[in-house]
Amino acid sequence: MSDSKYVLGLDYGTDSVRAVLVDTATGTEVSSHVFYYPRWSKGMYCDARVNRFRQHPLDYLEGLEGAVKGALASGPKGAASKVAGISVDTTGSTPVAVDKQGVALALRPEFAENPNGMFILWKDHTAIAEAAEINRHAKEWGGEDFTRYSGGVYSSEWFWSKILHTLREDEAVRDAAWSWVEHCDWIPAVLTGVTDPAAMKRSRCAAGHKAMWNELWDGLPDETFLASLDPLLAGLRERLYRETHTADLKAGGLSDEWAGRLGLRPGIAVGVGAFDAHMGAVGGEIAPYSLVKIIGTSTCDVLLAPSDELGDTLVKGICGQVDGSVLPGMIGLEAGQSAFGDIYAWFKQLLLWPLTLLGEQPGLDADAAAALEQTLADRLIPALSEAAAAIPPGETAELAVDWHNGRRTPFANQALKGALCGLNLGSDAPRIFRALVEATAYGARLIVERFREEGVPIKEVIAIGGVPKKAPFVMQVLADVLDMDIKVAKSEQTVALGAAMFAATAAGLFPSVMEAQKAMGSGFDTVYSPDPASAARYRVLFEKYRHVGDFIENNLTE
Amino acid sequence: MSDSKYVLGLDYGTDSVRAVLVDTATGTEVSSHVFYYPRWSKGMYCDARVNRFRQHPLDYLEGLEGAVKGALASGPKGAASKVAGISVDTTGSTPVAVDKQGVALALRPEFAENPNGMFILWKDHTAIAEAAEINRHAKEWGGEDFTRYSGGVYSSEWFWSKILHTLREDEAVRDAAWSWVEHCDWIPAVLTGVTDPAAMKRSRCAAGHKAMWNELWDGLPDETFLASLDPLLAGLRERLYRETHTADLKAGGLSDEWAGRLGLRPGIAVGVGAFDAHMGAVGGEIAPYSLVKIIGTSTCDVLLAPSDELGDTLVKGICGQVDGSVLPGMIGLEAGQSAFGDIYAWFKQLLLWPLTLLGEQPGLDADAAAALEQTLADRLIPALSEAAAAIPPGETAELAVDWHNGRRTPFANQALKGALCGLNLGSDAPRIFRALVEATAYGARLIVERFREEGVPIKEVIAIGGVPKKAPFVMQVLADVLDMDIKVAKSEQTVALGAAMFAATAAGLFPSVMEAQKAMGSGFDTVYSPDPASAARYRVLFEKYRHVGDFIENNLTE
Repeated sequence: MSDSKYVLGLDYGTDSVRAVLVDTATGTEVSSHVFYYPRWSKGMYCDARVNRFRQHPLDYLEGLEGAVKGALASGPKGAASKVAGISVDTTGSTPVAVDKQGVALALRPEFAENPNGMFILWKDHTAIAEAAEINRHAKEWGGEDFTRYSGGVYSSEWFWSKILHTLREDEAVRDAAWSWVEHCDWIPAVLTGVTDPAAMKRSRCAAGHKAMWNELWDGLPDETFLASLDPLLAGLRERLYRETHTADLKAGGLSDEWAGRLGLRPGIAVGVGAFDAHMGAVGGEIAPYSLVKIIGTSTCDVLLAPSDELGDTLVKGICGQVDGSVLPGMIGLEAGQSAFGDIYAWFKQLLLWPLTLLGEQPGLDADAAAALEQTLADRLIPALSEAAAAIPPGETAELAVDWHNGRRTPFANQALKGALCGLNLGSDAPRIFRALVEATAYGARLIVERFREEGVPIKEVIAIGGVPKKAPFVMQVLADVLDMDIKVAKSEQTVALGAAMFAATAAGLFPSVMEAQKAMGSGFDTVYSPDPASAARYRVLFEKYRHVGDFIENNLTE
Repeated sequence: MSDSKYVLGLDYGTDSVRAVLVDTATGTEVSSHVFYYPRWSKGMYCDARVNRFRQHPLDYLEGLEGAVKGALASGPKGAASKVAGISVDTTGSTPVAVDKQGVALALRPEFAENPNGMFILWKDHTAIAEAAEINRHAKEWGGEDFTRYSGGVYSSEWFWSKILHTLREDEAVRDAAWSWVEHCDWIPAVLTGVTDPAAMKRSRCAAGHKAMWNELWDGLPDETFLASLDPLLAGLRERLYRETHTADLKAGGLSDEWAGRLGLRPGIAVGVGAFDAHMGAVGGEIAPYSLVKIIGTSTCDVLLAPSDELGDTLVKGICGQVDGSVLPGMIGLEAGQSAFGDIYAWFKQLLLWPLTLLGEQPGLDADAAAALEQTLADRLIPALSEAAAAIPPGETAELAVDWHNGRRTPFANQALKGALCGLNLGSDAPRIFRALVEATAYGARLIVERFREEGVPIKEVIAIGGVPKKAPFVMQVLADVLDMDIKVAKSEQTVALGAAMFAATAAGLFPSVMEAQKAMGSGFDTVYSPDPASAARYRVLFEKYRHVGDFIENNLTE
């Protein structure tokens, strides 16, 4: 144990990967390093206009090395030799096509520049049509409705939609794709040197939430179902997987090759991977009937219910409920908002549009223009928040709907769009910003109501991620709209901390993840409590939001 | 005639008054001068948050002298002695409370700073509740529905709503107000030295369109109706007026006092006043079944139909139809959009909000910041127009409703608000600007459809005002959405030119306004023709706009 003091938590986010070195005795985050994906940061392989978002496997591999070595370099001397394990979380569903040797296609020269051979990022919405087909087929094919444990609606953001879309669209990828692997399964496979796709340890979390895997039907959906959906899918089930694993387990030992590349000891535990939200929920000290909201560009919401208490309850319209997806013996219920911070970022970009004209300003050189742009970009959201916070709740006519990126839950519908109502000639930027913040909070409340309507109680709300740490105005509005206390986790890197807890468990340092949580948890530093008068006003406005939302869904959606 | 070569057209707009000196033989605009209202330009007596907009009578009187003297000073030497007449148009309904001597109350020391003793500008919406009461009472009181010729809906922007609101709100004004006068009637009274409110020549146009005056019921609405609406109105009818006059007639001769102040000959013709839109329509060469759209911050639309052809047709939901309000022997039908250019200005202000943070920029002094603000403010709308024009029609998801300042026609409803739907994370400033421009065009089409639904044909569309001259992108979208040619009048100051045509007629230089039009008309310089493919796409989108509008009206309006 004295030689195995540390673990590494590796958190693959949308823009970067973060490695955190954690002391397992205290939970102290000893050092960390963030590596930004170089190709992604240049906008390569993406087209926001058609919601195509792809990430090159080299971004991930370079990030793996860069982040781990960076964290080790800034940690205590000799720490590398005291690392007992490493666990990985990623975004998801973010699948990639692999060949028979487990190589992500874009790593082969002929697919190096082909976006269809790359990871299809969670927020890629190119497969809207295929998701609609899957939903139709699931209800009509005559057998089991495999979407039952996915809230009854299969999303274009998920595994099968993305596979089907790619197989239809790209003949070369279709011919070369032997199997498909989620990002969170591919990294542990790489680290443990497993190349056979059938031997890669697949995460219960990814499989259950995004691929309709369930023990009830012996794994993935039935071959007949898949082949009748599209013959292109025939035979794929057998080349994927039947077994899945919870993230407290070891996927394998670190390969000699990667031990060398990272400067770690060969053979140390590599945990089974999972999605960021699920590991983050553990890092944020999720407990039964806690709702953990991971709030960043979008949100992922995780609710935990003991398997024996939830019984046969199926919560419709969420992203799924999977036994063991967060902790063994517990059902992890996942929901989420397609855009949260992204909506504020959208508004910021909108307001900064006039700066595209700065080049026309006589006497303002390029450096001064760039400095000015930087100042305004940095100050805009804080300044809007200050101004918006000064407006009493419920005193503005502006009302927004937060579906700028579609709606994830309740009842996934990527075709939905956002709206701004109640506009008048006095609707200035702070008022509209306030309406947008309220809209994201109403979106959060829609999810809470969905659970309540199914009789699933929510005992506490825990917020983690970037927004809870840096946006007190947003958090106060959220508390007022939800009419519940919101606890903000103390750690600045809760998701990576959660991965570290899993790594420590997989390495055998703790008998269970809950024990690891107790030893390594960072606690909470802020609690936002609702103001009763604001909460009362928001109860009324929330109904108005629902009403506008219903109109959009029933009348303005193609 | 050689001594009476010129006339003066005086156009009181929202921000300024413009005087134009016109050669009656050719219609040449020899010289002009614009005078900005000094108090108004400082925002005095207004509160945009509650839509209170008042103008001080001194702004008008100083403007009268400033504009006329400015135009004469920059005209040919000796022109002042060759001016045969002067006619005035103003915004409206813009009434003021006057005492028994015709003095606008704010000209008395005790009311000098009281907004309720000032002119209540057309766009003041403080009387929304009173308008609703008038509408209810008109339908329920058991007698004639006096709103019949006002499109069936009385507006908060009009004469009686404003009077009732002010009488209720301000006891001092209530006690001091003997009568009420429209701006377009008060200026001719001032110029001709008429002080008795009962002797002031009242314009047919203002009375018929805004005060429910009609020959059918012998003038203004019945005393019983008014007194039962509110006893505060009892007796006022007798202190207002019974007779009205068309603007081709002379109100009187220029008084010695004002001849002296302006440097004109005493006794020259002062025409009966009228609203800017009606005189502007004449300046824009309105003919039977022409729709003249005066497009600026808002629009006023004037359609002309021969009295004997329109017969008993009542067009519901417009601002009124009045025999002789534009030309004798013709019914002038008035409609309008509450906000047009104002919506673009709103968006511009929204996008310029980040500049409020310029003071925080190190190294940018106040002068440089001011210069930068000026550049961006000047360039923004042109740059947005260029970028928006490059987006193909119908290819954007964004859809706006243009009710940021309520809806004037069809079916006045000041409580309505604007909206932006179809928002997504790719909704940038040019796309939203395009949607706003399209929305103002849809608003124009709603009016055209209203006339058509009542069987009133529209043979041509003529556009005058600031927007048609400087916004070709907006005009092209308008032509595409209306699916009609739009002719833009050549004159830069069509409204003042129209006033000059009335002045020339009132002075006896022409036997009728139509003769004056023929001699003095400036013609057209641009015709925008619809693109058939765009027009087809907009037909579909217009129905969507209507649908969203119906939802807003039925569900989001208090």
